[in-house]
Amino acid sequence: MPYVKRGGVNTYYETYGKGSPIVFLHPFSTNGYIWYFQTFAFARTNQCVVIDERGHGRSDKPQQGYAIKEMAADVVAVLDELKINKTILVGNSIGGMILMQLNLDAPDRVAGNVIVSSGTNLGAGMPPEAMAAFQKDLAGAFGGLIEGAVSAKTKRERPEIVELMKAQFLVEENFPRHVFFAAAADPSGVFNWNISDRLKEIHKPTLVLAGEEDQATPVVANKFLADNIPGAQLRVVKDVGHFYELEQPDGFNRELQQFVKQVAA
Amino acid sequence: MPYVKRGGVNTYYETYGKGSPIVFLHPFSTNGYIWYFQTFAFARTNQCVVIDERGHGRSDKPQQGYAIKEMAADVVAVLDELKINKTILVGNSIGGMILMQLNLDAPDRVAGNVIVSSGTNLGAGMPPEAMAAFQKDLAGAFGGLIEGAVSAKTKRERPEIVELMKAQFLVEENFPRHVFFAAAADPSGVFNWNISDRLKEIHKPTLVLAGEEDQATPVVANKFLADNIPGAQLRVVKDVGHFYELEQPDGFNRELQQFVKQVAA
Repeated sequence: MPYVKRGGVNTYYETYGKGSPIVFLHPFSTNGYIWYFQTFAFARTNQCVVIDERGHGRSDKPQQGYAIKEMAADVVAVLDELKINKTILVGNSIGGMILMQLNLDAPDRVAGNVIVSSGTNLGAGMPPEAMAAFQKDLAGAFGGLIEGAVSAKTKRERPEIVELMKAQFLVEENFPRHVFFAAAADPSGVFNWNISDRLKEIHKPTLVLAGEEDQATPVVANKFLADNIPGAQLRVVKDVGHFYELEQPDGFNRELQQFVKQVAA
Repeated sequence: MPYVKRGGVNTYYETYGKGSPIVFLHPFSTNGYIWYFQTFAFARTNQCVVIDERGHGRSDKPQQGYAIKEMAADVVAVLDELKINKTILVGNSIGGMILMQLNLDAPDRVAGNVIVSSGTNLGAGMPPEAMAAFQKDLAGAFGGLIEGAVSAKTKRERPEIVELMKAQFLVEENFPRHVFFAAAADPSGVFNWNISDRLKEIHKPTLVLAGEEDQATPVVANKFLADNIPGAQLRVVKDVGHFYELEQPDGFNRELQQFVKQVAA
């Protein structure tokens, strides 16, 4: 069965294909399905590993334990299980945070990084009333966040993405309420995690992809990552919000293909 | 674990949400991921069950046993496991065949049917050289089939769908070669299955959705279903090929939403 147990928590993963590995890490409140347009396409030439992070989808959802460091250790456990020595990591949003933490904790396991719309110390940029709004009306507050996280073109041409993102957040089997509040309250969780002064310790080839219209992790948050990770490249993508891999899969895949080739060279 | 075992074969399923059930059955050579834009959206109001049919995705892939009747019995086993008495069935391509067979074998379990680009006795319409082409160059022949199965608009605006469909067919962990040939050779399998003279026995509300540009199961094959299933409605959808749920998820979801309401009324 495609689970790895670590400290009592089962992490779900799927693996397809053979070749140089790529591990995909999804955004907060979603699940591994978001990489649907990457998983099979890249499995023709690479081993693609898709993980449901703890608290999400088909993985266990403990009451506590949502420090980014814990979530990164789950990914290392999956690498161990699959006997993957070194891999390219692709992480969107919290997936990007997990990826950066993994670079600090297990740098030898990393061949390269693609950070898609992420950041560090994001809570510092949140207005103090934001968390109160989430306490009061979780669905409404998150719905507003999603509306701001998706580009105008995506809303116009792929309205199903907005509906999907709202639904994944609200469907309890995928993302129960307690996970949101435990992760939000965790001093090293998604909103409070801060490695601003350690970004300089990441030394693997890194590409940062920022959606120009993303209001959840805006360009400036991604530019901060690229400016502080030695040698990192920043690409700001037009007509894209927080979910490049799903909003424009064709463009994303061409970009990822090129990065995979560069790292292999 | 989300598996049901029947006759030694494990069928993988996922279930999200509560309420009146909807079971989703995917096309040949794909997997349950194809319902990504339906599963979570409809799980806000319904119990959504997504199945990987035997031979596909995360389910077992026996050497033989790909009669449509066997595949329908697997679905009934999932319904039993989940204690689902009656459900709406949504099936695309071979998923539609499984759905029709289930209507014959276990009519009491069916509340209504949405058949998306399907047919019966499809092998009769295939040129004799088609199977020889598959024997000679599986990837090439299937690639050609996919090019003809997706609409011009989809190719232009969502080219990732063509790539995805080709890749799912070629990635062995998802759909091994032996499944294609065993299913194709089965006298009651995907190409040879023929219930033309039994369509009149299907008595549940049925909507047939045909993609206007689908060359895999063309409009005429779907019109035959709608003409012979008592009371069935046919909708021919513009700018869509074989995969309406993925080519135009927003339109598909509105259509399915309306059907779900009608059946509940």
